Amino acid sequence: MPTKSPVIIDLKFDQEQVAAALKGAFPDREVINLLHPASRNRDLSGIDYAVVWKPGADLFSRAKDLKVVFSGGAGVDHVLTLPGLPDVPLVRFVDPSLTTRMSEWVALQCLLHLRQHRAYEAQRQKRVWRELAQPEAKEFTIGIMGFGVLGQDAAAKLKTLGFNVIGWSKSGRKVEGFETYDENGLDAFLAKTDILVGLLPLTPETKGIFNTGLFTRLSRKGPFGAPVFVNGGRGGSQVEADIVASLNDGTLHGASLDVFEQEPLPLESPLWSMDKAFLTPHAAAASDVGALFRHVGEQIERLESGKPLEYLVDRSAGY
Amino acid sequence: MPTKSPVIIDLKFDQEQVAAALKGAFPDREVINLLHPASRNRDLSGIDYAVVWKPGADLFSRAKDLKVVFSGGAGVDHVLTLPGLPDVPLVRFVDPSLTTRMSEWVALQCLLHLRQHRAYEAQRQKRVWRELAQPEAKEFTIGIMGFGVLGQDAAAKLKTLGFNVIGWSKSGRKVEGFETYDENGLDAFLAKTDILVGLLPLTPETKGIFNTGLFTRLSRKGPFGAPVFVNGGRGGSQVEADIVASLNDGTLHGASLDVFEQEPLPLESPLWSMDKAFLTPHAAAASDVGALFRHVGEQIERLESGKPLEYLVDRSAGY
Ligand SMILES: NC(=O)c1ccc[n+]([C@@H]2O[C@H](COP(=O)([O-])OP(=O)(O)OC[C@H]3O[C@@H](n4cnc5c(N)ncnc54)[C@H](OP(=O)(O)O)[C@@H]3O)[C@@H](O)[C@H]2O)c1
Ligand SMILES: NC(=O)c1ccc[n+]([C@@H]2O[C@H](COP(=O)([O-])OP(=O)(O)OC[C@H]3O[C@@H](n4cnc5c(N)ncnc54)[C@H](OP(=O)(O)O)[C@@H]3O)[C@@H](O)[C@H]2O)c1
Repeated sequence: MPTKSPVIIDLKFDQEQVAAALKGAFPDREVINLLHPASRNRDLSGIDYAVVWKPGADLFSRAKDLKVVFSGGAGVDHVLTLPGLPDVPLVRFVDPSLTTRMSEWVALQCLLHLRQHRAYEAQRQKRVWRELAQPEAKEFTIGIMGFGVLGQDAAAKLKTLGFNVIGWSKSGRKVEGFETYDENGLDAFLAKTDILVGLLPLTPETKGIFNTGLFTRLSRKGPFGAPVFVNGGRGGSQVEADIVASLNDGTLHGASLDVFEQEPLPLESPLWSMDKAFLTPHAAAASDVGALFRHVGEQIERLESGKPLEYLVDRSAGY
Repeated sequence: MPTKSPVIIDLKFDQEQVAAALKGAFPDREVINLLHPASRNRDLSGIDYAVVWKPGADLFSRAKDLKVVFSGGAGVDHVLTLPGLPDVPLVRFVDPSLTTRMSEWVALQCLLHLRQHRAYEAQRQKRVWRELAQPEAKEFTIGIMGFGVLGQDAAAKLKTLGFNVIGWSKSGRKVEGFETYDENGLDAFLAKTDILVGLLPLTPETKGIFNTGLFTRLSRKGPFGAPVFVNGGRGGSQVEADIVASLNDGTLHGASLDVFEQEPLPLESPLWSMDKAFLTPHAAAASDVGALFRHVGEQIERLESGKPLEYLVDRSAGY
């Protein structure tokens, strides 16, 4: 039996978590954790697999014979722009724990806006007891831009909570139980949307897509008279100056952002102190490192037993 | 055809909403809104129906011939203690809009605690970008005390969001898809519960049930190391001094309260300023007055066509 190729790990994640997750992972092959000092001068030629997130600049020149690159996250915008990325299959991370976490975050944000949480918090701080007029979930249509793995899971959960949900994707893919729109249907989709949820990958086409021009095409007929913007995809898809201006002039009623053009969000960003915005530090759906290694192990297993890899990235589409 | 009995309305709700909802309601019978000055000296004898919420002290002596009393809310604790309440069927308010709103509120509260919202808000105010270790919904068991109309709807939605959910009720009623416990199973139920959700009616048996003695029997094995208490039922079921002490000494990790022993919550209550508590002013699930009148109309229609009334209150049980 030929020895199995080692797997290279180059993940700029919490190293304690990586070390803990590596215990027992990949039982039948060597693991080379490049963040370990002992691996500094290790010869990486002849190795088939690398699992990467913000890898070292010299990784691809050292590991010249990679057959598959695994992204440490669901998004691959950071990976696709890596200099020297070899022209081999690129597999992204898809896992129920990541998907579920994103849906938790999206549901929380939609409910925070629906149930006027900021207003109640402000009242509480002033010890004011006052019930606000309260529309119901079914009076809102949530439009999800990016109706892939994450978008569809969030959609099903939001629907269970009582919201109307519609979806938009490049292909306008049909999804049972939901009205969906394609690229040409964008205007019709936006005109129906009271709460816009962004779950798009960052690609040349989606860069800066969430801007004032788009916000002004959203519905203003919902119970709050102005739309809400929620982004859990990528910060590069949003124009933050436009979000700030739109919150200030009433084009937007509220916003929830987990991702930002620059991360960490710069100290001087006006978003930090905006009453109408909820912010989280790219924490909506952290990759569970244990789940990541299980996923990589399964894909390697598939490949070595002659099955096709799953979750392959289409490089020309950028996701 | 005999004339149909008028219906008396005595609801201490927002009177604009009541007036708007009365337009077109009960098209085939007279409506006597007791909050209207013209009804002050109206003879109420011989009238069959009254819809009440905090009615006038003289209602039942004036309306001596009532055949059915309708509660304006889902809870009937306020109605059952009314002096002079006649010994006739008492119907409570059950409606999908009320149920859905309560589930929105419960889901929001559970997600606020799960996703460490207060901690992220505090970080945001200090412009701190820091990701917190984030357990997943499936690592929590939510125990719902009161597994009736509201408890079961919340349970289904929380389960969809990924939480484990168990239920506790007087009868231990079996509900497909959930582990349920009866009165004798309380200890076993509490020992499994990381997030306790109260959706109990207020009765002599449930008065003060949420106290330190009960909180100390909850699980401390969950990801936060201490349990969370959420109450959307009735304030009389909780001992607020115990909640405050339990939050302060770590018996409880957090709390969400919509209901209070005294409402409005007194200005001097320490709950107003507790970092670990979310408060709303008995706003979890307001009765939609339009829906209330439709429900009353349907029940009267049933009765007059010889069908049994629904949602009857069991006076000896108190709910
Ligand atoms: N904040 C976080 O913590 C976090 C965590 C994980 C992931 N994310 C982000 O979430 C993104 C989505 O993840 P996923 O797993 O759901 O990806 P996915 O399954 O690949 O779905 C992507 C969706 O976006 C649509 N799309 C892509 N480009 C488009 C365009 N130009 N116009 C219209 N629609 C377009 C796709 O359309 P088709 O259906 O037609 O292909 C698809 O519906 C990731 O790329 C990542 O950036 C963020
Ligand atoms: N905050 C708000 O805005 C708001 C709005 C609406 C309602 N509420 C409150 O929510 C309560 C529940 O409403 P619901 O429509 O779900 O009522 P429900 O359908 O009558 O359900 C009540 C549940 O509590 C259980 N229960 C009652 N007494 C008990 C006891 N001594 N020990 C154990 N379990 C007991 C019942 O057990 P069995 O199943 O064995 O009968 C049942 O499962 C209402 O009574 C009201 O006070 C609050």
